[in-house]
Amino acid sequence: MSRLFVYRLQSLAPSVSFTVLVSHSLVFTSKGTLAAAPLTACSRQISTSPPCMAPIPKECDYLVIGIGSGGIASARRAAKYGAKVIAVESRRMGGTCVNVGCVPKKVTWNAAAISETFKDAKAYGFGGYDTPSFDWPYFKKKRDAYVKRLNGIYENNLNRDKIEHMKGRAKFVTENEVEVALESGGTQRVKAKNILIATGGRPKIPDFPGKELCIDSDGFFDLETLPKSIASSGAGYIGVEMSGMLHALGSKVHFFIRGQKLLRSFDPMIQDVVTKEYERQGISLHKGSQITKVEDIGNGLKRVTYQETESKKESTVEVEVVLFAVGRSPEVEDLHIKELGIKLNEKNHIVTDDYQNTSTPNIYAIGDVCDRGFELTPVAIAAGRRLSDRLFGGKKNSHLDYSNIPSVVFSHPEIGSIGLTEPQAREKYGDKVKVYKTEFTGMYYAMMDQEDKGPTAYKIICVGDEEKVVGLHILGTGSSEILQGFGVAVKMGATKQDFDNCVAIHPVSAEELVTMT
Amino acid sequence: MSRLFVYRLQSLAPSVSFTVLVSHSLVFTSKGTLAAAPLTACSRQISTSPPCMAPIPKECDYLVIGIGSGGIASARRAAKYGAKVIAVESRRMGGTCVNVGCVPKKVTWNAAAISETFKDAKAYGFGGYDTPSFDWPYFKKKRDAYVKRLNGIYENNLNRDKIEHMKGRAKFVTENEVEVALESGGTQRVKAKNILIATGGRPKIPDFPGKELCIDSDGFFDLETLPKSIASSGAGYIGVEMSGMLHALGSKVHFFIRGQKLLRSFDPMIQDVVTKEYERQGISLHKGSQITKVEDIGNGLKRVTYQETESKKESTVEVEVVLFAVGRSPEVEDLHIKELGIKLNEKNHIVTDDYQNTSTPNIYAIGDVCDRGFELTPVAIAAGRRLSDRLFGGKKNSHLDYSNIPSVVFSHPEIGSIGLTEPQAREKYGDKVKVYKTEFTGMYYAMMDQEDKGPTAYKIICVGDEEKVVGLHILGTGSSEILQGFGVAVKMGATKQDFDNCVAIHPVSAEELVTMT
Repeated sequence: MSRLFVYRLQSLAPSVSFTVLVSHSLVFTSKGTLAAAPLTACSRQISTSPPCMAPIPKECDYLVIGIGSGGIASARRAAKYGAKVIAVESRRMGGTCVNVGCVPKKVTWNAAAISETFKDAKAYGFGGYDTPSFDWPYFKKKRDAYVKRLNGIYENNLNRDKIEHMKGRAKFVTENEVEVALESGGTQRVKAKNILIATGGRPKIPDFPGKELCIDSDGFFDLETLPKSIASSGAGYIGVEMSGMLHALGSKVHFFIRGQKLLRSFDPMIQDVVTKEYERQGISLHKGSQITKVEDIGNGLKRVTYQETESKKESTVEVEVVLFAVGRSPEVEDLHIKELGIKLNEKNHIVTDDYQNTSTPNIYAIGDVCDRGFELTPVAIAAGRRLSDRLFGGKKNSHLDYSNIPSVVFSHPEIGSIGLTEPQAREKYGDKVKVYKTEFTGMYYAMMDQEDKGPTAYKIICVGDEEKVVGLHILGTGSSEILQGFGVAVKMGATKQDFDNCVAIHPVSAEELVTMT
Repeated sequence: MSRLFVYRLQSLAPSVSFTVLVSHSLVFTSKGTLAAAPLTACSRQISTSPPCMAPIPKECDYLVIGIGSGGIASARRAAKYGAKVIAVESRRMGGTCVNVGCVPKKVTWNAAAISETFKDAKAYGFGGYDTPSFDWPYFKKKRDAYVKRLNGIYENNLNRDKIEHMKGRAKFVTENEVEVALESGGTQRVKAKNILIATGGRPKIPDFPGKELCIDSDGFFDLETLPKSIASSGAGYIGVEMSGMLHALGSKVHFFIRGQKLLRSFDPMIQDVVTKEYERQGISLHKGSQITKVEDIGNGLKRVTYQETESKKESTVEVEVVLFAVGRSPEVEDLHIKELGIKLNEKNHIVTDDYQNTSTPNIYAIGDVCDRGFELTPVAIAAGRRLSDRLFGGKKNSHLDYSNIPSVVFSHPEIGSIGLTEPQAREKYGDKVKVYKTEFTGMYYAMMDQEDKGPTAYKIICVGDEEKVVGLHILGTGSSEILQGFGVAVKMGATKQDFDNCVAIHPVSAEELVTMT
């Protein structure tokens, strides 16, 4: 099943024919319907190669497989050092981030934030409107056009840096040779001294009756209309973000989570506050529940059967869209790297060391396909650049330090996190841990009635007599922007005293982080 | 004239009679009109004192004159150490920040930001409304109520910390004795081992024909309706904030500045971008001009005559409100400190050393009344707390380090600044200065037409081979929240490499600060 989703994503690219490496000919079109793709590879050769014959292998210093954020960053940095670089991408340039991740997500989150502002505005004395309408198709068209512009920027950047690039799907032939099944037909072999795997990942949906009626996070970005109602599954950050956005934009959201809290890998304070806040906002949170069956009942509706984990009690709800955001898989199958003996972990992520080396010499991996545990665009970029600094820039020890990487969730409100959660810190440092914590109402809510006030919650986790900051967890309006500077400070080894030494900025939410007692 | 404005501010407090220390009896009422105040001090004694006789002096360890943000912070910190503290305030508790500064300003800025969001929303696909109405009187009433709640919190905090406090105007009698002209009538003398002057400042308006028809920044918060049109004067941050807010809320703004740029004490990049942006938004910026005359022409209108500085050409414009935000004066006159020989600078600020000592032993000054140059609430708070730590907490060296204090301007968009401007850095460090600079369009504007996109501009000023950050200047949405964490890092002595060592957060604006090349 997950394979079909890969193809559906591919099909977002204009004028793509699915002729190569497709073991069957059924693919989703960009409208989500099934279509037969003709097996006419030989009739669509690249012009430089004679038809139906293996072309002469190209050679380069650095082959980058996957032109997402990490791949292109590494490729361009290598080219800057004078390396001959070839890059391959089977889908649209930009990877998950640009096409079905950060970028369209943030743009949609902005729309959701605007929608929330309309509600807030009345408390400030604005009126003369009811609920403003939201033209999702108009918005989606603009968002798609924006993403397409970014795709073009990626391509221009490659051209400007004289990086040869090809559209097609790569598989390893030997440790230093790859065969690319070209989108335009035919194949092209590439020999490279160094090969970077930066193929990223893709969403997955578990097996259950009716899963083919559900969408994943890629499908979220294909939605042509705002669903009146949605059932979503998955308490991780993608589920929290997408459920929050749809709710803010006016969908009735049924949110199914196996446990009792959202964002279970986050600090308990964050879990508690975001869970309570989503419920306060009116999202129907079905705790301790999971979707067990989805049926099409016509009229654009689906009947979702869900089971309470403890009581095994089954209930149903009818919605327009069923969204699964329950995890992602690394994009490794088509690479044929198992055959090559490259070591994978139990979840099929490529095992890498601190220097992004795989178990096979001269083959490297960065980003969501590798096992470093941070599926974040800037992490892939940073790791990719440092790798090229090491391989081609003479910086022998260059590598990404994966400690204290800041990350944010575009929930409602936003969440930011650096370093250890409180339980992790207590596990590691025992009673050397000291926690500073505050919950307050941001001044933005000064005009609201009590029941309409949103929460702000900050926690600083310190260790030792010097109170070194080992964890920072923030929830509240503006958290996504607040975190970056504190990230710099924490990475520098900030103590609580360093926080307090900075004079507060008034009146902002962030000032509370330098005045906690 | 400026004295009258003090009284007008006083008159905002409910049931205040202006009988004491008033050398004349004409005062503004809270409606801004003139009223005669009867000189009946003796009939309004505080109950504990016999009428018309000097009461027995109270004695304390620490007398704090002015219960604004700085005064109360110092008073409470001293009380925490067991000091006997008396605090005096002639107006409403909370000082400029709570009553006519940060707090009502930020709440109004929030309203302005909401109004801007309505405009932005259409590009995102929102519709079904024209320009939403804004009910200023409703908003003002709520804002005033919020401020009043904060006044109450101040009073509760004093009571909780068992700090005796009195309403009245203080003047020095000797170096360790003060006479308070009580609001309730009569006087009360207080002897104190240590006296803190934390009386703050007040806005001033220059002399010219018709100045009595104009309002200052205090008057901005008295406005009972949103002016349809306004003339504002003063390129500093208060003028920029107030002009920006009124424009965003729908006033037609004529903004008169003597020079060619707004915010002339800021980094040139900030000056350039904010000036251009205010013009782009449709504010009528009259550069190289100043208001020379204001006349009441009836129908709620004022005719403003202004002169171009170079050509001396005079023109007029008719507006409802004329706002001056051209500077503030320290609140020192009524204290009689000149008589005591306490040293003032040329602008009447009290001269203090690094430890907030004045030229007279055991008399200290913090906040806007002193000469340290940062008229910021958190600076007064920090200085006040550290002073009490030193005086009563045994921390002999405790004092505020005034370097690298972050500050923000709630302009449209917001501005943040730490440390040296580029000219200051070049003056101090010559060619050791390296500047990183970027201007870009935030993702929020992805949906807007080109002419509707707002700017973002960031500059990092570094010195030496290690590229230590000595200045940081940012303009763009979210800057007020972004700055705090970077403030911690800069105060810690961050280098450009420290900035870059932190992995970016994507997609936010702040990430550009850790990825600049």
